[in-house]
Amino acid sequence: MTREKLFEQILQKKSYLCVGLDTDPKKLPEHLLDFEDPVFEFNRQIIDATADLCVAYKPNIAFYEAQGPKGWVSLEKTINHIPQEIFTIADAKRGDIGNTSELYARAFFETMNFDSVTVAPYMGSDSVKPFLVQGGKWVILLALTSNPGSQDFQMLRLADGSEEYLWEQVLRESSTWGTAGQLMYVVGATQAEYVQRVRAIVPDHFLLVPGVGAQGGSLEEISRLGMNQRCGLLVNSSRAIIYASSGRDFAEKAREAAQEVQREMEQYLEQYVQHL
Amino acid sequence: MTREKLFEQILQKKSYLCVGLDTDPKKLPEHLLDFEDPVFEFNRQIIDATADLCVAYKPNIAFYEAQGPKGWVSLEKTINHIPQEIFTIADAKRGDIGNTSELYARAFFETMNFDSVTVAPYMGSDSVKPFLVQGGKWVILLALTSNPGSQDFQMLRLADGSEEYLWEQVLRESSTWGTAGQLMYVVGATQAEYVQRVRAIVPDHFLLVPGVGAQGGSLEEISRLGMNQRCGLLVNSSRAIIYASSGRDFAEKAREAAQEVQREMEQYLEQYVQHL
Repeated sequence: MTREKLFEQILQKKSYLCVGLDTDPKKLPEHLLDFEDPVFEFNRQIIDATADLCVAYKPNIAFYEAQGPKGWVSLEKTINHIPQEIFTIADAKRGDIGNTSELYARAFFETMNFDSVTVAPYMGSDSVKPFLVQGGKWVILLALTSNPGSQDFQMLRLADGSEEYLWEQVLRESSTWGTAGQLMYVVGATQAEYVQRVRAIVPDHFLLVPGVGAQGGSLEEISRLGMNQRCGLLVNSSRAIIYASSGRDFAEKAREAAQEVQREMEQYLEQYVQHL
Repeated sequence: MTREKLFEQILQKKSYLCVGLDTDPKKLPEHLLDFEDPVFEFNRQIIDATADLCVAYKPNIAFYEAQGPKGWVSLEKTINHIPQEIFTIADAKRGDIGNTSELYARAFFETMNFDSVTVAPYMGSDSVKPFLVQGGKWVILLALTSNPGSQDFQMLRLADGSEEYLWEQVLRESSTWGTAGQLMYVVGATQAEYVQRVRAIVPDHFLLVPGVGAQGGSLEEISRLGMNQRCGLLVNSSRAIIYASSGRDFAEKAREAAQEVQREMEQYLEQYVQHL
Protein backbone atom coordinates (compact mmCIF):
# COMPACT_ATOMS: atom_id res chain seq x y z
CA MET A 1 0.00 0.00 0.00
CA THR A 2 1.31 3.48 -0.85
CA ARG A 3 1.61 6.33 1.63
CA GLU A 4 -1.00 8.25 -0.36
CA LYS A 5 -3.53 5.43 -0.09
CA LEU A 6 -2.93 5.17 3.61
CA PHE A 7 -3.48 8.90 4.09
CA GLU A 8 -6.66 8.73 2.00
CA GLN A 9 -7.99 6.03 4.33
CA ILE A 10 -7.18 8.19 7.33
CA LEU A 11 -9.06 11.17 5.87
CA GLN A 12 -12.00 9.06 4.81
CA LYS A 13 -12.43 7.26 8.13
CA LYS A 14 -11.26 10.21 10.24
CA SER A 15 -9.18 7.71 12.12
CA TYR A 16 -5.57 6.66 12.52
CA LEU A 17 -6.43 3.72 14.71
CA CYS A 18 -4.59 0.44 14.39
CA VAL A 19 -6.33 -2.47 16.08
CA GLY A 20 -3.89 -4.94 17.60
CA LEU A 21 -5.03 -8.51 17.06
CA ASP A 22 -3.11 -9.94 20.02
CA THR A 23 -5.50 -12.82 20.27
CA ASP A 24 -4.76 -15.04 23.25
CA PRO A 25 -6.57 -18.41 23.05
CA LYS A 26 -6.86 -18.32 26.84
CA LYS A 27 -8.87 -15.10 26.77
CA LEU A 28 -11.50 -16.06 24.20
CA PRO A 29 -15.21 -15.77 25.07
CA GLU A 30 -16.36 -19.24 26.00
CA HIS A 31 -19.03 -19.53 23.35
CA LEU A 32 -16.35 -19.38 20.64
CA LEU A 33 -14.57 -22.51 21.81
CA ASP A 34 -16.96 -24.72 19.84
CA PHE A 35 -15.82 -23.25 16.54
CA GLU A 36 -13.31 -25.21 14.48
CA ASP A 37 -10.83 -22.32 14.72
CA PRO A 38 -11.83 -20.16 17.70
CA VAL A 39 -8.94 -17.71 17.24
CA PHE A 40 -9.93 -16.99 13.66
CA GLU A 41 -13.61 -16.74 14.58
CA PHE A 42 -12.74 -14.17 17.26
CA ASN A 43 -10.61 -12.17 14.81
CA ARG A 44 -13.25 -12.39 12.09
CA GLN A 45 -15.92 -10.91 14.33
CA ILE A 46 -13.55 -8.21 15.66
CA ILE A 47 -12.61 -7.25 12.10
CA ASP A 48 -16.21 -7.17 10.90
CA ALA A 49 -17.15 -4.99 13.87
CA THR A 50 -14.29 -2.46 13.55
CA ALA A 51 -13.23 -2.30 9.89
CA ASP A 52 -14.92 1.03 9.22
CA LEU A 53 -13.32 2.64 12.29
CA CYS A 54 -9.65 1.76 11.85
CA VAL A 55 -7.05 2.04 9.11
CA ALA A 56 -4.76 -0.81 10.16
CA TYR A 57 -4.73 -4.22 11.83
CA LYS A 58 -1.65 -5.50 13.62
CA PRO A 59 -1.53 -9.14 14.69
CA ASN A 60 1.34 -9.67 17.09
CA ILE A 61 2.90 -12.78 15.60
CA ALA A 62 3.94 -14.23 18.98
CA PHE A 63 0.32 -14.98 19.84
CA TYR A 64 -0.01 -17.16 16.75
CA GLU A 65 3.45 -18.69 16.84
CA ALA A 66 2.86 -19.88 20.42
CA GLN A 67 0.11 -22.16 19.05
CA GLY A 68 2.39 -24.05 16.69
CA PRO A 69 1.31 -24.79 13.09
CA LYS A 70 -2.39 -24.26 13.78
CA GLY A 71 -1.63 -20.72 14.93
CA TRP A 72 -0.17 -19.94 11.51
CA VAL A 73 -3.30 -21.26 9.89
CA SER A 74 -5.41 -18.93 12.07
CA LEU A 75 -3.11 -16.06 11.11
CA GLU A 76 -3.36 -16.76 7.39
CA LYS A 77 -7.16 -16.91 7.56
CA THR A 78 -7.17 -13.67 9.53
CA ILE A 79 -4.97 -11.77 7.10
CA ASN A 80 -7.07 -13.02 4.20
CA HIS A 81 -10.22 -11.76 5.91
CA ILE A 82 -8.97 -8.18 6.35
CA PRO A 83 -10.42 -5.87 3.66
CA GLN A 84 -7.88 -4.97 0.95
CA GLU A 85 -7.92 -1.24 1.68
CA ILE A 86 -6.82 -1.66 5.30
CA PHE A 87 -3.11 -1.57 6.10
CA THR A 88 -1.77 -4.76 7.66
CA ILE A 89 1.18 -5.03 10.02
CA ALA A 90 2.94 -8.27 10.92
CA ASP A 91 4.25 -7.33 14.36
CA ALA A 92 7.08 -9.82 14.26
CA LYS A 93 10.14 -7.79 15.27
CA ARG A 94 12.31 -9.88 12.97
CA GLY A 95 15.84 -9.20 11.77
CA ASP A 96 18.67 -11.49 10.68
CA ILE A 97 21.63 -11.49 8.31
CA GLY A 98 20.85 -10.57 4.72
CA ASN A 99 19.91 -13.86 3.07
CA THR A 100 17.84 -14.84 6.10
CA SER A 101 15.98 -11.54 6.29
CA GLU A 102 15.03 -12.19 2.67
CA LEU A 103 13.28 -15.34 3.84
CA TYR A 104 11.40 -13.46 6.56
CA ALA A 105 10.39 -10.92 3.93
CA ARG A 106 9.13 -13.80 1.81
CA ALA A 107 7.21 -15.24 4.78
CA PHE A 108 5.31 -12.04 5.52
CA PHE A 109 5.08 -10.36 2.11
CA GLU A 110 4.57 -13.40 -0.12
CA THR A 111 3.50 -16.50 1.83
CA MET A 112 1.18 -14.13 3.68
CA ASN A 113 0.19 -10.87 2.04
CA PHE A 114 1.07 -8.37 4.80
CA ASP A 115 1.72 -4.74 3.86
CA SER A 116 4.41 -4.31 6.50
CA VAL A 117 6.52 -6.05 9.09
CA THR A 118 8.15 -4.74 12.25
CA VAL A 119 11.93 -5.21 12.31
CA ALA A 120 14.58 -4.87 15.03
CA PRO A 121 17.57 -2.67 14.15
CA TYR A 122 20.40 -4.22 16.20
CA MET A 123 21.97 -6.19 13.32
CA GLY A 124 22.15 -3.12 11.07
CA SER A 125 21.55 -2.23 7.44
CA ASP A 126 21.95 -5.61 5.77
CA SER A 127 19.36 -7.09 8.15
CA VAL A 128 16.79 -4.41 7.26
CA LYS A 129 17.34 -3.69 3.56
CA PRO A 130 16.06 -7.09 2.32
CA PHE A 131 12.63 -6.03 3.57
CA LEU A 132 12.76 -2.81 1.51
CA VAL A 133 12.87 -4.26 -1.96
CA GLN A 134 9.22 -4.67 -2.81
CA GLY A 135 7.00 -1.80 -3.95
CA GLY A 136 4.14 -1.02 -1.60
CA LYS A 137 5.69 -3.10 1.21
CA TRP A 138 6.95 -1.45 4.37
CA VAL A 139 9.46 -1.93 7.15
CA ILE A 140 8.44 -0.61 10.55
CA LEU A 141 11.69 -0.31 12.46
CA LEU A 142 11.89 -0.34 16.25
CA ALA A 143 13.22 3.04 17.36
CA LEU A 144 12.05 4.05 20.83
CA THR A 145 9.82 1.37 22.28
CA SER A 146 7.13 1.73 24.94
CA ASN A 147 8.44 -0.80 27.47
CA PRO A 148 10.60 -0.12 30.57
CA GLY A 149 13.52 -2.01 28.98
CA SER A 150 13.80 0.76 26.37
CA GLN A 151 15.96 2.48 29.02
CA ASP A 152 18.62 -0.22 28.90
CA PHE A 153 20.14 0.34 25.46
CA GLN A 154 17.95 2.65 23.37
CA MET A 155 18.57 5.52 25.80
CA LEU A 156 22.36 5.15 25.91
CA ARG A 157 24.16 8.30 24.82
CA LEU A 158 26.72 8.10 22.03
CA ALA A 159 30.31 9.34 22.11
CA ASP A 160 30.26 10.88 18.64
CA GLY A 161 30.27 14.46 19.88
CA SER A 162 26.50 14.74 19.43
CA GLU A 163 25.63 13.15 22.77
CA GLU A 164 22.59 11.75 20.99
CA TYR A 165 20.72 8.72 22.21
CA LEU A 166 21.19 5.41 20.44
CA TRP A 167 17.58 5.55 19.18
CA GLU A 168 18.31 8.90 17.52
CA GLN A 169 21.23 7.40 15.62
CA VAL A 170 18.99 4.47 14.66
CA LEU A 171 16.51 6.95 13.14
CA ARG A 172 19.22 9.06 11.49
CA GLU A 173 21.13 6.17 9.96
CA SER A 174 18.19 3.98 8.94
CA SER A 175 16.28 6.83 7.32
CA THR A 176 18.97 6.80 4.61
CA TRP A 177 18.15 3.16 3.77
CA GLY A 178 14.77 3.84 2.20
CA THR A 179 12.13 6.48 1.65
CA ALA A 180 9.31 7.72 3.87
CA GLY A 181 7.11 5.63 1.58
CA GLN A 182 8.86 2.42 2.67
CA LEU A 183 9.87 2.99 6.26
CA MET A 184 7.94 3.71 9.43
CA TYR A 185 9.18 3.76 13.02
CA VAL A 186 7.90 2.35 16.28
CA VAL A 187 7.78 5.12 18.90
CA GLY A 188 5.96 4.29 22.13
CA ALA A 189 3.22 6.59 23.39
CA THR A 190 4.94 6.38 26.78
CA GLN A 191 7.84 8.30 25.21
CA ALA A 192 5.86 11.46 24.37
CA GLU A 193 8.54 13.69 25.91
CA TYR A 194 10.90 12.64 23.09
CA VAL A 195 8.49 12.89 20.18
CA GLN A 196 9.68 16.33 19.13
CA ARG A 197 13.24 14.97 18.93
CA VAL A 198 11.86 12.12 16.79
CA ARG A 199 10.17 14.61 14.46
CA ALA A 200 13.36 16.67 14.20
CA ILE A 201 15.04 13.66 12.57
CA VAL A 202 12.14 12.06 10.66
CA PRO A 203 9.54 14.78 10.03
CA ASP A 204 7.81 12.96 7.19
CA HIS A 205 7.73 9.33 8.30
CA PHE A 206 4.76 7.54 9.73
CA LEU A 207 5.17 6.46 13.34
CA LEU A 208 3.51 3.33 14.67
CA VAL A 209 2.61 4.15 18.26
CA PRO A 210 1.92 1.42 20.80
CA GLY A 211 1.48 2.07 24.51
CA VAL A 212 -1.74 4.10 24.59
CA GLY A 213 -4.15 2.74 27.19
CA ALA A 214 -2.95 -0.19 29.33
CA GLN A 215 0.68 1.01 29.17
CA GLY A 216 -0.22 4.58 30.17
CA GLY A 217 0.49 6.71 27.08
CA SER A 218 -1.80 9.63 26.22
CA LEU A 219 -3.50 9.76 22.81
CA GLU A 220 -3.91 13.52 23.04
CA GLU A 221 -0.26 14.14 23.84
CA ILE A 222 1.18 11.86 21.19
CA SER A 223 -1.21 13.30 18.59
CA ARG A 224 -0.43 16.92 19.44
CA LEU A 225 3.32 16.35 19.45
CA GLY A 226 3.67 13.69 16.80
CA MET A 227 1.34 14.53 13.91
CA ASN A 228 2.61 15.86 10.61
CA GLN A 229 0.76 17.16 7.55
CA ARG A 230 -0.19 13.67 6.44
CA CYS A 231 -1.16 12.67 9.94
CA GLY A 232 1.98 10.54 10.20
CA LEU A 233 0.66 8.42 13.04
CA LEU A 234 -0.84 4.99 13.39
CA VAL A 235 -1.85 4.59 17.02
CA ASN A 236 -2.31 1.03 18.15
CA SER A 237 -4.78 -0.25 20.70
CA SER A 238 -5.01 -3.94 21.43
CA ARG A 239 -6.41 -5.11 24.74
CA ALA A 240 -8.66 -2.10 25.39
CA ILE A 241 -10.53 -2.90 22.18
CA ILE A 242 -10.44 -6.63 21.60
CA TYR A 243 -11.04 -7.53 25.24
CA ALA A 244 -13.57 -4.77 25.99
CA SER A 245 -15.92 -7.60 26.95
CA SER A 246 -15.30 -11.29 27.52
CA GLY A 247 -18.91 -12.25 26.88
CA ARG A 248 -21.13 -12.91 23.89
CA ASP A 249 -21.17 -9.18 23.18
CA PHE A 250 -17.36 -8.96 22.71
CA ALA A 251 -17.55 -7.75 19.10
CA GLU A 252 -20.21 -5.14 19.88
CA LYS A 253 -18.18 -3.85 22.84
CA ALA A 254 -15.02 -3.86 20.75
CA ARG A 255 -16.83 -1.69 18.23
CA GLU A 256 -17.90 0.72 20.97
CA ALA A 257 -14.36 0.95 22.31
CA ALA A 258 -12.98 1.53 18.81
CA GLN A 259 -15.62 4.14 18.11
CA GLU A 260 -14.67 6.05 21.22
CA VAL A 261 -11.04 6.19 20.11
CA GLN A 262 -12.04 7.10 16.55
CA ARG A 263 -14.10 10.05 17.77
CA GLU A 264 -11.21 11.34 19.80
CA MET A 265 -8.93 10.93 16.77
CA GLU A 266 -11.37 12.83 14.58
CA GLN A 267 -10.94 15.84 16.86
CA TYR A 268 -7.15 15.70 16.72
CA LEU A 269 -7.16 15.32 12.95
CA GLU A 270 -9.25 18.49 12.70
CA GLN A 271 -7.08 20.28 15.21
CA TYR A 272 -3.59 19.27 14.13
CA VAL A 273 -3.54 18.16 10.48
CA GLN A 274 -3.34 21.21 8.27
CA HIS A 275 -4.89 19.54 5.22
CA LEU A 276 -8.26 19.22 6.88
CA MET B 1 20.10 -28.85 29.30
CA THR B 2 22.63 -27.81 31.95
CA ARG B 3 26.03 -26.31 31.25
CA GLU B 4 27.65 -29.38 32.76
CA LYS B 5 25.79 -31.74 30.41
CA LEU B 6 26.77 -29.62 27.44
CA PHE B 7 30.44 -29.68 28.46
CA GLU B 8 30.26 -33.46 28.96
CA GLN B 9 28.99 -33.82 25.40
CA ILE B 10 31.84 -31.67 24.13
CA LEU B 11 34.43 -33.80 25.93
CA GLN B 12 32.85 -37.04 24.84
CA LYS B 13 32.52 -36.13 21.17
CA LYS B 14 35.67 -33.99 21.10
CA SER B 15 33.62 -31.46 19.23
CA TYR B 16 31.96 -28.10 19.77
CA LEU B 17 30.32 -28.12 16.38
CA CYS B 18 26.81 -26.82 15.91
CA VAL B 19 25.22 -27.84 12.63
CA GLY B 20 22.97 -25.13 11.21
CA LEU B 21 19.82 -26.63 9.71
CA ASP B 22 19.16 -23.71 7.35
CA THR B 23 17.22 -25.93 5.03
CA ASP B 24 16.13 -24.14 1.89
CA PRO B 25 13.45 -26.06 -0.04
CA LYS B 26 14.98 -24.68 -3.25
CA LYS B 27 18.31 -26.32 -2.53
CA LEU B 28 17.14 -29.86 -1.78
CA PRO B 29 18.59 -32.79 -3.72
CA GLU B 30 16.09 -33.65 -6.43
CA HIS B 31 15.47 -37.22 -5.31
CA LEU B 32 13.99 -35.95 -2.03
CA LEU B 33 11.18 -34.06 -3.70
CA ASP B 34 9.02 -37.19 -3.88
CA PHE B 35 8.88 -37.47 -0.09
CA GLU B 36 5.78 -36.20 1.68
CA ASP B 37 7.88 -33.71 3.62
CA PRO B 38 11.15 -33.20 1.71
CA VAL B 39 12.50 -30.63 4.20
CA PHE B 40 12.10 -33.02 7.12
CA GLU B 41 13.52 -35.93 5.13
CA PHE B 42 16.60 -33.83 4.32
CA ASN B 43 17.02 -32.84 7.97
CA ARG B 44 16.45 -36.39 9.17
CA GLN B 45 19.23 -37.74 6.97
CA ILE B 46 21.58 -34.88 7.90
CA ILE B 47 20.93 -35.49 11.60
CA ASP B 48 21.40 -39.24 11.32
CA ALA B 49 24.68 -38.68 9.46
CA THR B 50 26.18 -36.09 11.83
CA ALA B 51 24.73 -36.69 15.32
CA ASP B 52 27.90 -38.30 16.69
CA LEU B 53 30.09 -35.44 15.42
CA CYS B 54 28.26 -32.37 16.73
CA VAL B 55 26.91 -31.19 20.07
CA ALA B 56 24.18 -28.85 18.81
CA TYR B 57 21.73 -28.32 15.98
CA LYS B 58 20.49 -24.87 15.06
CA PRO B 59 17.57 -24.53 12.67
CA ASN B 60 17.28 -20.94 11.51
CA ILE B 61 13.58 -20.38 11.97
CA ALA B 62 13.26 -18.06 8.94
CA PHE B 63 13.74 -20.99 6.59
CA TYR B 64 10.72 -22.76 8.09
CA GLU B 65 8.56 -19.70 8.63
CA ALA B 66 8.94 -18.78 4.94
CA GLN B 67 7.03 -21.99 4.10
CA GLY B 68 3.94 -21.07 6.07
CA PRO B 69 2.20 -23.62 8.34
CA LYS B 70 3.79 -26.62 6.66
CA GLY B 71 7.25 -25.22 7.49
CA TRP B 72 6.35 -25.32 11.19
CA VAL B 73 5.31 -28.94 10.81
CA SER B 74 8.70 -29.76 9.24
CA LEU B 75 10.39 -27.90 12.09
CA GLU B 76 8.48 -29.78 14.78
CA LYS B 77 9.28 -33.12 13.20
CA THR B 78 12.94 -32.09 12.95
CA ILE B 79 13.24 -31.03 16.57
CA ASN B 80 11.56 -34.26 17.67
CA HIS B 81 14.06 -36.27 15.65
CA ILE B 82 17.15 -34.73 17.27
CA PRO B 83 18.58 -37.06 19.97
CA GLN B 84 17.82 -35.84 23.50
CA GLU B 85 21.46 -35.35 24.50
CA ILE B 86 22.14 -32.84 21.72
CA PHE B 87 21.63 -29.15 22.45
CA THR B 88 19.01 -27.48 20.26
CA ILE B 89 18.94 -23.82 19.28
CA ALA B 90 15.93 -22.06 17.78
CA ASP B 91 17.72 -19.35 15.82
CA ALA B 92 14.78 -16.99 15.85
CA LYS B 93 16.25 -13.66 17.01
CA ARG B 94 13.03 -12.82 18.81
CA GLY B 95 12.37 -10.09 21.38
CA ASP B 96 9.24 -8.16 22.33
CA ILE B 97 7.69 -6.52 25.37
CA GLY B 98 7.39 -8.72 28.45
CA ASN B 99 4.06 -10.47 28.07
CA THR B 100 4.76 -11.08 24.38
CA SER B 101 8.23 -12.48 24.96
CA GLU B 102 6.57 -14.94 27.33
CA LEU B 103 4.55 -16.20 24.38
CA TYR B 104 7.67 -16.61 22.26
CA ALA B 105 9.24 -18.50 25.15
CA ARG B 106 6.17 -20.72 25.21
CA ALA B 107 6.41 -21.26 21.44
CA PHE B 108 10.01 -22.46 21.51
CA PHE B 109 10.34 -24.03 24.97
CA GLU B 110 6.90 -25.65 25.32
CA THR B 111 5.08 -25.95 21.99
CA MET B 112 8.42 -27.10 20.65
CA ASN B 113 11.01 -28.49 23.01
CA PHE B 114 14.05 -26.37 22.13
CA ASP B 115 16.84 -25.95 24.69
CA SER B 116 17.55 -22.37 23.67
CA VAL B 117 16.44 -19.48 21.55
CA THR B 118 18.38 -16.56 20.07
CA VAL B 119 17.10 -13.17 21.21
CA ALA B 120 17.77 -9.58 20.06
CA PRO B 121 18.72 -7.12 22.82
CA TYR B 122 17.40 -3.79 21.49
CA MET B 123 14.22 -3.74 23.61
CA GLY B 124 16.12 -4.35 26.86
CA SER B 125 15.74 -6.40 30.01
CA ASP B 126 12.00 -6.96 30.08
CA SER B 127 12.13 -8.36 26.55
CA VAL B 128 14.82 -10.89 27.50
CA LYS B 129 14.01 -11.95 31.06
CA PRO B 130 10.78 -13.84 30.18
CA PHE B 131 13.01 -16.33 28.35
CA LEU B 132 15.13 -16.88 31.48
CA VAL B 133 12.53 -18.37 33.79
CA GLN B 134 12.73 -22.04 32.98
CA GLY B 135 15.43 -24.34 34.34
CA GLY B 136 17.65 -25.85 31.69
CA LYS B 137 16.44 -23.40 29.03
CA TRP B 138 18.78 -20.81 27.56
CA VAL B 139 18.76 -17.40 25.98
CA ILE B 140 21.43 -16.78 23.36
CA LEU B 141 21.62 -13.01 23.08
CA LEU B 142 22.91 -11.21 20.01
CA ALA B 143 26.04 -9.32 21.02
CA LEU B 144 28.50 -8.84 18.16
CA THR B 145 27.14 -10.39 15.01
CA SER B 146 29.06 -11.64 11.98
CA ASN B 147 27.39 -9.54 9.28
CA PRO B 148 28.62 -6.22 7.80
CA GLY B 149 25.65 -4.39 9.36
CA SER B 150 27.14 -5.09 12.81
CA GLN B 151 29.13 -1.90 12.13
CA ASP B 152 26.02 0.29 12.05
CA PHE B 153 24.92 0.22 15.68
CA GLN B 154 26.77 -2.51 17.62
CA MET B 155 30.08 -0.73 17.05
CA LEU B 156 28.90 2.72 18.17
CA ARG B 157 30.91 4.07 21.08
CA LEU B 158 29.13 5.18 24.23
CA ALA B 159 29.42 8.52 26.01
CA ASP B 160 29.58 7.08 29.52
CA GLY B 161 33.25 7.84 30.02
CA SER B 162 34.24 4.27 29.15
CA GLU B 163 34.22 4.80 25.37
CA GLU B 164 33.03 1.21 25.15
CA TYR B 165 31.17 -0.13 22.18
CA LEU B 166 27.43 -0.67 22.38
CA TRP B 167 27.96 -4.45 22.19
CA GLU B 168 30.19 -4.29 25.25
CA GLN B 169 27.47 -2.57 27.23
CA VAL B 170 25.00 -5.18 25.97
CA LEU B 171 27.27 -7.91 27.39
CA ARG B 172 27.94 -6.05 30.64
CA GLU B 173 24.32 -5.17 31.35
CA SER B 174 22.66 -8.39 30.20
CA SER B 175 25.10 -10.62 32.07
CA THR B 176 23.45 -9.35 35.28
CA TRP B 177 20.05 -10.69 34.13
CA GLY B 178 20.89 -14.37 34.49
CA THR B 179 23.70 -16.80 35.10
CA ALA B 180 26.29 -18.32 32.78
CA GLY B 181 24.08 -21.40 32.97
CA GLN B 182 21.18 -19.57 31.32
CA LEU B 183 22.76 -17.09 28.96
CA MET B 184 25.02 -17.42 25.96
CA TYR B 185 26.08 -14.77 23.46
CA VAL B 186 26.30 -14.62 19.69
CA VAL B 187 29.77 -13.44 18.67
CA GLY B 188 30.62 -13.74 14.98
CA ALA B 189 33.80 -15.53 13.92
CA THR B 190 34.44 -12.53 11.66
CA GLN B 191 34.91 -10.47 14.84
CA ALA B 192 37.93 -12.42 16.15
CA GLU B 193 39.87 -9.20 16.82
CA TYR B 194 37.35 -8.36 19.56
CA VAL B 195 37.08 -11.77 21.21
CA GLN B 196 39.53 -10.91 23.98
CA ARG B 197 37.37 -7.89 24.85
CA VAL B 198 34.36 -10.22 24.90
CA ARG B 199 36.14 -12.60 27.28
CA ALA B 200 37.16 -9.69 29.53
CA ILE B 201 33.45 -9.08 30.21
CA VAL B 202 32.00 -12.59 30.05
CA PRO B 203 34.83 -15.03 30.80
CA ASP B 204 32.55 -17.93 31.73
CA HIS B 205 29.72 -17.75 29.23
CA PHE B 206 29.33 -19.93 26.20
CA LEU B 207 29.57 -18.09 22.89
CA LEU B 208 27.62 -19.20 19.85
CA VAL B 209 29.88 -18.43 16.91
CA PRO B 210 28.50 -18.14 13.39
CA GLY B 211 30.52 -16.90 10.44
CA VAL B 212 33.14 -19.62 10.07
CA GLY B 213 33.41 -20.79 6.46
CA ALA B 214 31.26 -18.97 3.89
CA GLN B 215 31.47 -15.70 5.83
CA GLY B 216 35.25 -15.85 6.20
CA GLY B 217 35.88 -16.41 9.93
CA SER B 218 38.75 -18.66 11.06
CA LEU B 219 38.02 -21.62 13.33
CA GLU B 220 41.61 -21.66 14.59
CA GLU B 221 41.60 -17.98 15.53
CA ILE B 222 38.23 -17.96 17.27
CA SER B 223 39.14 -21.16 19.16
CA ARG B 224 42.53 -19.86 20.29
CA LEU B 225 41.16 -16.50 21.42
CA GLY B 226 37.69 -17.48 22.62
CA MET B 227 37.95 -20.77 24.52
CA ASN B 228 37.64 -20.96 28.26
CA GLN B 229 38.15 -23.85 30.67
CA ARG B 230 34.82 -25.40 29.76
CA CYS B 231 35.43 -24.85 26.07
CA GLY B 232 32.83 -22.06 26.11
CA LEU B 233 32.29 -22.15 22.36
CA LEU B 234 29.68 -23.57 20.05
CA VAL B 235 30.86 -22.95 16.52
CA ASN B 236 28.18 -23.12 13.89
CA SER B 237 28.52 -24.31 10.34
CA SER B 238 25.50 -24.45 8.06
CA ARG B 239 25.99 -24.34 4.32
CA ALA B 240 29.47 -25.90 4.26
CA ILE B 241 28.03 -29.03 5.87
CA ILE B 242 24.43 -29.42 4.79
CA TYR B 243 25.08 -28.45 1.18
CA ALA B 244 28.43 -30.24 0.84
CA SER B 245 26.81 -32.12 -2.02
CA SER B 246 23.54 -31.55 -3.84
CA GLY B 247 23.29 -35.13 -5.06
CA ARG B 248 22.13 -38.47 -3.67
CA ASP B 249 25.25 -38.56 -1.50
CA PHE B 250 24.37 -35.33 0.36
CA ALA B 251 24.19 -36.98 3.79
CA GLU B 252 27.45 -38.87 3.31
CA LYS B 253 29.20 -35.70 2.13
CA ALA B 254 27.70 -33.74 5.03
CA ARG B 255 29.19 -36.33 7.37
CA GLU B 256 32.59 -35.97 5.74
CA ALA B 257 32.45 -32.19 6.03
CA ALA B 258 31.37 -32.40 9.69
CA GLN B 259 34.09 -34.92 10.42
CA GLU B 260 36.74 -32.63 9.01
CA VAL B 261 35.59 -29.80 11.29
CA GLN B 262 35.35 -32.15 14.28
CA ARG B 263 38.94 -33.33 13.77
CA GLU B 264 40.18 -29.77 13.71
CA MET B 265 38.15 -29.03 16.85
CA GLU B 266 39.63 -32.05 18.59
CA GLN B 267 43.09 -30.50 18.16
CA TYR B 268 42.02 -27.16 19.58
CA LEU B 269 40.31 -28.79 22.54
CA GLU B 270 43.57 -30.58 23.34
CA GLN B 271 45.60 -27.45 22.84
CA TYR B 272 43.46 -24.83 24.57
CA VAL B 273 41.11 -26.41 27.12
CA GLN B 274 43.03 -27.02 30.33
CA HIS B 275 40.79 -29.82 31.58
CA LEU B 276 41.90 -32.18 28.84
